[in-house]
Amino acid sequence: MSKFATDLSQIEAVIFDVDGVLSRTTTVMNEAGIPMRTANVRDGYAIKEAARCGITIGIISGAFADNVPKRYGPLGVKHIYMGQASKRQALEHFVKKSGVPLERILFCGDDIPDIAVMKLCGCAIAPQDAAPEVKAIAHQILPVRGGEGVARMVLEELLKMKGLWLKDEGAFEW
Amino acid sequence: MSKFATDLSQIEAVIFDVDGVLSRTTTVMNEAGIPMRTANVRDGYAIKEAARCGITIGIISGAFADNVPKRYGPLGVKHIYMGQASKRQALEHFVKKSGVPLERILFCGDDIPDIAVMKLCGCAIAPQDAAPEVKAIAHQILPVRGGEGVARMVLEELLKMKGLWLKDEGAFEW
Amino acid sequence: MSKFATDLSQIEAVIFDVDGVLSRTTTVMNEAGIPMRTANVRDGYAIKEAARCGITIGIISGAFADNVPKRYGPLGVKHIYMGQASKRQALEHFVKKSGVPLERILFCGDDIPDIAVMKLCGCAIAPQDAAPEVKAIAHQILPVRGGEGVARMVLEELLKMKGLWLKDEGAFEW
Amino acid sequence: MSKFATDLSQIEAVIFDVDGVLSRTTTVMNEAGIPMRTANVRDGYAIKEAARCGITIGIISGAFADNVPKRYGPLGVKHIYMGQASKRQALEHFVKKSGVPLERILFCGDDIPDIAVMKLCGCAIAPQDAAPEVKAIAHQILPVRGGEGVARMVLEELLKMKGLWLKDEGAFEW
Repeated sequence: MSKFATDLSQIEAVIFDVDGVLSRTTTVMNEAGIPMRTANVRDGYAIKEAARCGITIGIISGAFADNVPKRYGPLGVKHIYMGQASKRQALEHFVKKSGVPLERILFCGDDIPDIAVMKLCGCAIAPQDAAPEVKAIAHQILPVRGGEGVARMVLEELLKMKGLWLKDEGAFEW
Repeated sequence: MSKFATDLSQIEAVIFDVDGVLSRTTTVMNEAGIPMRTANVRDGYAIKEAARCGITIGIISGAFADNVPKRYGPLGVKHIYMGQASKRQALEHFVKKSGVPLERILFCGDDIPDIAVMKLCGCAIAPQDAAPEVKAIAHQILPVRGGEGVARMVLEELLKMKGLWLKDEGAFEW
Repeated sequence: MSKFATDLSQIEAVIFDVDGVLSRTTTVMNEAGIPMRTANVRDGYAIKEAARCGITIGIISGAFADNVPKRYGPLGVKHIYMGQASKRQALEHFVKKSGVPLERILFCGDDIPDIAVMKLCGCAIAPQDAAPEVKAIAHQILPVRGGEGVARMVLEELLKMKGLWLKDEGAFEW
Repeated sequence: MSKFATDLSQIEAVIFDVDGVLSRTTTVMNEAGIPMRTANVRDGYAIKEAARCGITIGIISGAFADNVPKRYGPLGVKHIYMGQASKRQALEHFVKKSGVPLERILFCGDDIPDIAVMKLCGCAIAPQDAAPEVKAIAHQILPVRGGEGVARMVLEELLKMKGLWLKDEGAFEW
């Protein structure tokens, strides 16, 4: 019995925007004026676990933030695109590299620059506090705000629909 | 149909205070005892987009905070005044440099030192958690707290009233 | 018409604890494991303004935190005691140095180590989220949490009761 | 009269997970992409006080975070295990070193990798926002979220049940 109205059983890859999705919309700035993105530790568990179960995970962000690849690379995010003025190009590159077709990709975004790619993917999901224009085109709006466990909720649901959530001993270790 | 009771169609320039407006009122301090201002990423989108659409944007702050110009200069904020004991002088300078008359300037402030300049401008707007003395003289009180998307709400509304919100392809890229 | 049930008109000095009063109870740690205290910018305005109006302001903290004196010294806090295992000794020293007798001192504290000094002072005030043992002995419990504007609320009320709040042009500058 | 339904009088040692228990689930990242754990100052008081009263305190975390031992070692946490892929091994080591048998150990955890050790200990407690799988096996769910005073609530309750809370003058100093 799922809180998700959307069928995720055909999804093979999940792409996350960073700001307002993996990270909160409001964050402290460092001395250089760069917003210091936040991370959610239970997102971390779900990303590592989903990667272990064979889900392809990507990040496409308009921003440059050195610490994002440093955090998510070791957790198993294979495809990380930062500083993308046009997210469409990055998405095309992701499809080519990963071999996962658009209709089997789930994209999580929160703001206007995510709309074009969210429309192209098989499933589009938005956090609770996404821009209204994004919520209007999303298949599913989550009951959590950006940065507060978006990846956990999406990936846990995806693994459950595929029968992969907590399926073996490995899931109970870190 | 706007949530804004105030007519913004004559506004050509928007000036933001930093502390309690672009940044939260409570923030972590660095080792030197300086509050490390926060930034909101959806404010960032709106500032960049408003600047692209020809809106003149300024910042007038009583505080010194090196990272504020580093964040907002590249987003298109042309007129940044930090460390202003009297905000009136900075406002006069802004009028002279930008060529925008006072009645076409919108000022967003939250605390006592903003009151004098808010009274001089054509439109005065305060966040939800502004000081009561500021709310009392504001034309409009926003439903968001300082730091939580004040610039996004103001600039989005301004662009909508001018028919400039999401008007071309450029708005959908970062 | 005051929200304060307590008469503050006889108070000449105000002493703040740091953790849970000027700063939030939960804060991020730096690399050395030191909680990086938060500051509230509207507290900052009230402290500077109260000092300008002749109120003696002190800080007594059990913790060592270098950035606290750096933040509050320049705002006009004359008496700053950090790393005090026993707050009673610091309070006695404050009385001797400032010349303000205990019955004219207001103490803001939130946790067990504040209780002894709160009982000695003329007025004891606690934030909304103070420990129950502290609330039980406080003359007044504030409707704000520690770090979220405690000093602003206390000092604004004190200046109002003394007829000093926004009394001259200087109050409207920073 | 306790808010705790669980009898803690037989507990001699308390072990805390870090992420989502002593620290919030969402925190800002440093430049290296490491989540900068938060600390709660009233947790700090309770840990120091419980250690002074003879309670054995431990930390077992799956993560590497240099600032955690720096914060909690000086407060009296004797057994700190970081970077533990399997928490069971660390728990076995803790039992051997501390001499406290499993049935007299209380474990506070919030996520899947804590479940195995929570089941082994005499008492398992989860924060309000723990994963549902963890709440399902916990003896007690706290009314506070991870990072917001979990250790304070658990240790205060434990000391109260043992008649050790605020039992002597030492408790009122820092």
